[in-house]
Amino acid sequence: MSFSARIFVTLFIIFASEAKFLPKSRNGCRALLGDTLIKEIASYKNVKNEIFKYVLDGDFKHKTYDELAKFVDTFGARPSGSQVLEDSIDHMIQLTREEELNDIVTEELEVPHWIRGTEKVTMLEPRIKEIDVLGLGRSVNTPPEGITAEVVIVKNFEELSNLSNKDVDGKIVVYDPIFTTYGETVVYRSQGASKAAAKGAVASLVRSITPFSINTPHTGSQNYDDNIKKIPAGAISLEDADLLRRFYDRGEKIILNITMSSTYETKTSRNTIIDLKGTDHPEKLVIVSGHIDSWDVGQGAMDDGGGLFVSWAAPVILKRLNLRPKRTVRSIFWTAEELGLIGAYAYEEKHRNESHNINFIMESDEGTFAPLGLAVAGTQEARCIIAEILKLFKSINASTLVEDDSPGSDINVIIKNGIPGASLHNANERYFWFHHTEGDTMNVEDPDELDLCAAFWTAVAYIIADISIDIPR
Amino acid sequence: MSFSARIFVTLFIIFASEAKFLPKSRNGCRALLGDTLIKEIASYKNVKNEIFKYVLDGDFKHKTYDELAKFVDTFGARPSGSQVLEDSIDHMIQLTREEELNDIVTEELEVPHWIRGTEKVTMLEPRIKEIDVLGLGRSVNTPPEGITAEVVIVKNFEELSNLSNKDVDGKIVVYDPIFTTYGETVVYRSQGASKAAAKGAVASLVRSITPFSINTPHTGSQNYDDNIKKIPAGAISLEDADLLRRFYDRGEKIILNITMSSTYETKTSRNTIIDLKGTDHPEKLVIVSGHIDSWDVGQGAMDDGGGLFVSWAAPVILKRLNLRPKRTVRSIFWTAEELGLIGAYAYEEKHRNESHNINFIMESDEGTFAPLGLAVAGTQEARCIIAEILKLFKSINASTLVEDDSPGSDINVIIKNGIPGASLHNANERYFWFHHTEGDTMNVEDPDELDLCAAFWTAVAYIIADISIDIPR
Repeated sequence: MSFSARIFVTLFIIFASEAKFLPKSRNGCRALLGDTLIKEIASYKNVKNEIFKYVLDGDFKHKTYDELAKFVDTFGARPSGSQVLEDSIDHMIQLTREEELNDIVTEELEVPHWIRGTEKVTMLEPRIKEIDVLGLGRSVNTPPEGITAEVVIVKNFEELSNLSNKDVDGKIVVYDPIFTTYGETVVYRSQGASKAAAKGAVASLVRSITPFSINTPHTGSQNYDDNIKKIPAGAISLEDADLLRRFYDRGEKIILNITMSSTYETKTSRNTIIDLKGTDHPEKLVIVSGHIDSWDVGQGAMDDGGGLFVSWAAPVILKRLNLRPKRTVRSIFWTAEELGLIGAYAYEEKHRNESHNINFIMESDEGTFAPLGLAVAGTQEARCIIAEILKLFKSINASTLVEDDSPGSDINVIIKNGIPGASLHNANERYFWFHHTEGDTMNVEDPDELDLCAAFWTAVAYIIADISIDIPR
Repeated sequence: MSFSARIFVTLFIIFASEAKFLPKSRNGCRALLGDTLIKEIASYKNVKNEIFKYVLDGDFKHKTYDELAKFVDTFGARPSGSQVLEDSIDHMIQLTREEELNDIVTEELEVPHWIRGTEKVTMLEPRIKEIDVLGLGRSVNTPPEGITAEVVIVKNFEELSNLSNKDVDGKIVVYDPIFTTYGETVVYRSQGASKAAAKGAVASLVRSITPFSINTPHTGSQNYDDNIKKIPAGAISLEDADLLRRFYDRGEKIILNITMSSTYETKTSRNTIIDLKGTDHPEKLVIVSGHIDSWDVGQGAMDDGGGLFVSWAAPVILKRLNLRPKRTVRSIFWTAEELGLIGAYAYEEKHRNESHNINFIMESDEGTFAPLGLAVAGTQEARCIIAEILKLFKSINASTLVEDDSPGSDINVIIKNGIPGASLHNANERYFWFHHTEGDTMNVEDPDELDLCAAFWTAVAYIIADISIDIPR
């Protein structure tokens, strides 16, 4: 083989092997971006290093964790519509002002305030056993004496639809889907009650949406169909769901008493908007965000305290380092995410006329474990630019770009209008172990991982806000 | 190098590398046992294979899991002194009789019956928060209105002893040791209350004895010192203990209200003894055992349902396969282990005169995950024999012998008298995640792992009961 032939084969192998790690659609990134832009992006290495040094080994070391811990310890759970949520918003504004970031706006909106009351499920047959339960958001009440009825168990909606109305009428439907992905499994939590009610069920329970449990029920939101009778809806642990399933498969009759109460009203809350104004294009926005409300169980440290604080940290770190990008870096603390992205919908509606100014929108709401990269929505060219930026984070193994057309929770409300955006992709294999449970506490958070996330989040936002071109749509 | 020199070097390498995996004291096993015994032990390969085939692929496949599930689902928690424990003992006797094993004896004894009542801990300062708590076994009550006092937190007994009595007097002591091993850490649960009371504390709480938590408190036994005032004692989750610690380290005053009630009386229970009589030396015993009682939280599936059922399975499988060893295989279901090895002490006392007949005593009380081998107490020669037997289980990776002078819970009461014995060594890395919690359920148990444990347990017991020599003391 000639020398040039060897080079050809070697290059072929290199590109072939690289192609394995890049999604097919980004093969042409190099041609699409051009050498000038690629070089420009690479030139941000020094700024990135400066940010990482300051956060990992400088004055900001463990600051994100420490402030998050003080915040979570002081306020605890921050349910939509509660006074404690408003107090926690005031705290974040004060904390930001102390950083001499004074471009802070809050925008009021109406939010649901659903307050959990008594919740009790007792198995009466085949033997008496208390079953831990968490009502699902907006669940209606049972009568004070509860609902006592026989149980019918289904693995999925298909099994439910195969049952006759007579089989379900007057009964409690228990859904026991085995967790695959959150997206696939959560439909039994979010839609289960109305689908069961449509068949005549008097209440519905769902096996908690998690792959792991220490007899831990997981709450969450659910939506009633307007045209169908609203029935009480709750979540039980994997363990109790599987216990019911074993009885059911042995042909034993199961009778439960379900007692649930709650109150539901409307309150006023606020989205919080902090701007670090851009030097050249202050009207153009690179948004980082997390939600400040949490479920009423647990402490909302992981969901979404971590995302809130890395998004708070981004403008703070840039301000402290006197790094002012060309475009504005905007940090948004969404309110009332848990009961249906209420804050995000209000923001989208209020700012719809200026949506052309959103250059890129980011959210962290799936954990702040070790950062791995970004889950990105956008055109091929947009993804190519982000992929090129992510190459700067190889040393911390955060260069992965996941293609995801709906990468966030709140930000999907914006992204669905064709605006490019991304969610923090992180080592969150255990995220759903703690999600919406009493176990969502500071113990899930790690000071060093939070530092990595904060530094990564800040550097990515800075680079996108500062490069010479807008992220194309 | 000559041929003979090569052989020498090769053998040297083989033995040197083997020595790395064997404890130093067993280097001389081959010489100690002699070729005849080694060959005899190896000859049990066929019997072992027969047992494994029957359990893993034959009529007994998943029988251990299925019977355990029925047992646990029917009776649930089986606390010492309760009627449900006695009913569950009757069930085990009936289940055994159905296997035509009729050599069943129960021995009555007095056991403690401690019934948990109200348990509530509320943090009043620095903010109001409910703290999940589980009272520790035999804890005394608070007054009905509870005890309201300031908190002092210590990592260990040394920190407590360094405090003046004035620092502790009238306060609630919280121990927050970080889990290392169970043995090292559990002393703060078992001895913490009296040590705190000796300094004037009015109540004591311990960070749960576990390396992992989803806000999960772990109960357990504790012992009051007779000469010191008894104060209420409970366990809180890792998360809440760490929350208190953060407040404490920030210099914030912590005030808790602790309300605990319980009742304590004495009841009658039973140890259950099932014999598969030996053909040649029926008076000589190889004992397999587990405890049938459980804590009142969770379902007692892991602690010790699994150990109970693999020990039930041993004589059943041998009977079904018509394998009658020379010595008697005795299965014991200990009662009232959790409140202080009460059943084991009663058995030891009652059978002390015949203790020379106990050839070997085994217990499974640390999980029935995939078997890895045995933790063995005994002389060097005894351990050599067991190590040789364990070689038969290489194909399932269950050949590890751990040297442990106190390998069990109940059986330590017998072993401390110089009787050789062993505990099931298994892949129980997650055992303490579920131990003494509401998460001790069938979900921890795996049908295939239980089959491996049952087959291993049965084969080991058979071989020890059948070989030509007694296990030496």
